[in-house]
Amino acid sequence: MCRRDLAVVLVSGGMDSCVTASIASIDYSLAFLHVNYGHRTEKREERAFNDLCNFFKPVKKLIVDISYLKQIGGSALTDKNIEIPKGGLSKGCVPSTYVPFRNAHLLSIAVSWAEVIGAKRVYIGAVEEDSSGYPDCKEEFFVAFQEAVNKGTKPDTEIKIFTPLIHKSKAEIVKIGMHLGSPLELSWSCYSEEDIACGVCESCILRLKGFKEAGYEDKIPYREKK
Amino acid sequence: MCRRDLAVVLVSGGMDSCVTASIASIDYSLAFLHVNYGHRTEKREERAFNDLCNFFKPVKKLIVDISYLKQIGGSALTDKNIEIPKGGLSKGCVPSTYVPFRNAHLLSIAVSWAEVIGAKRVYIGAVEEDSSGYPDCKEEFFVAFQEAVNKGTKPDTEIKIFTPLIHKSKAEIVKIGMHLGSPLELSWSCYSEEDIACGVCESCILRLKGFKEAGYEDKIPYREKK
Repeated sequence: MCRRDLAVVLVSGGMDSCVTASIASIDYSLAFLHVNYGHRTEKREERAFNDLCNFFKPVKKLIVDISYLKQIGGSALTDKNIEIPKGGLSKGCVPSTYVPFRNAHLLSIAVSWAEVIGAKRVYIGAVEEDSSGYPDCKEEFFVAFQEAVNKGTKPDTEIKIFTPLIHKSKAEIVKIGMHLGSPLELSWSCYSEEDIACGVCESCILRLKGFKEAGYEDKIPYREKK
Repeated sequence: MCRRDLAVVLVSGGMDSCVTASIASIDYSLAFLHVNYGHRTEKREERAFNDLCNFFKPVKKLIVDISYLKQIGGSALTDKNIEIPKGGLSKGCVPSTYVPFRNAHLLSIAVSWAEVIGAKRVYIGAVEEDSSGYPDCKEEFFVAFQEAVNKGTKPDTEIKIFTPLIHKSKAEIVKIGMHLGSPLELSWSCYSEEDIACGVCESCILRLKGFKEAGYEDKIPYREKK
């Protein structure tokens, strides 16, 4: 019988959440949470989530739909009228793929579920550095949100948000994943495509750069590699 | 042409959100947001929301479904296996009608929408005192969440959360509503019923006490009045 505490892990199906799940699994029993929000590649990401469930065998899993983010719009990820940018990132800009305040939604769901199932931790694979400049991926956002969790849940609830990759580069994340045996080949990062990764969106470029710098080959299929 | 800034108002359809809408309407153009979360009286509350829309004529309205809170459960409001408590409130306890971390979900949706439509304010009719002891209705929660909003939205986004009723008693809320001409007869507060308010759930008791202490008659129908 497993006596370890439960941790909720937000598993998008991307590389970062895959490695985060490996980190969480060292000390905790896993409760995997996946959130669909009406974004372009949600079917492919849900497949990656299910593949990761088959690998990690979490004791609980939950898939939640918040496609109202598509109703709200304002992002290239949820509005097909806004083009997915190609190529690298401009420093200091919030890109058009920013989904307004999205991580607050993901954390709220994770915290509510954690409070009900008695989980002590919420893991999220957000990356501040070498990432996309999203304000809700910065450490200071998670620190502030932690305080809201402390104040807004029951007095005897203690849920800590963990962001183990927050200051890692993509290359470091690949190395940690390889070290921990993370099934990176099951993860999906492309913002545009669902069969063969485009290789040119900002997410593909960051992923490919990470693998290259870490000295490993990315085994998922790409249409082109810059 | 209206040149006033927009404010998102969270309108559940209850008395507090009705009075909050009246307060917001003094200075702002209104964007009404209603959230269904799979709770028992959601149909009745949505009717109250629509009645309030007909009265206030907001320039924008949005109804969002987060019935995943029912999947998550853990509350008498979303789980029919947990009984709605009758009678008064015990001081210092979090009642079974607490929906874990619910207000974080409502605020996240309001903030995302506000960021997309360019609203400067989010109004929520939360009440800390003379209320139900929910941790996510306390001022310190909203102060903490404001900081998460400051950190987690774009650098040029400025959204302030307003809780104008946070330290008001229900009697004061009735008086403010009467002073501002709030259509309290269109609002709905009962946790249990959708046709005639039960009069005995904690929400009905708080409402009836408020009207009584304020010296006004509550015009909605009740099955019984304690």
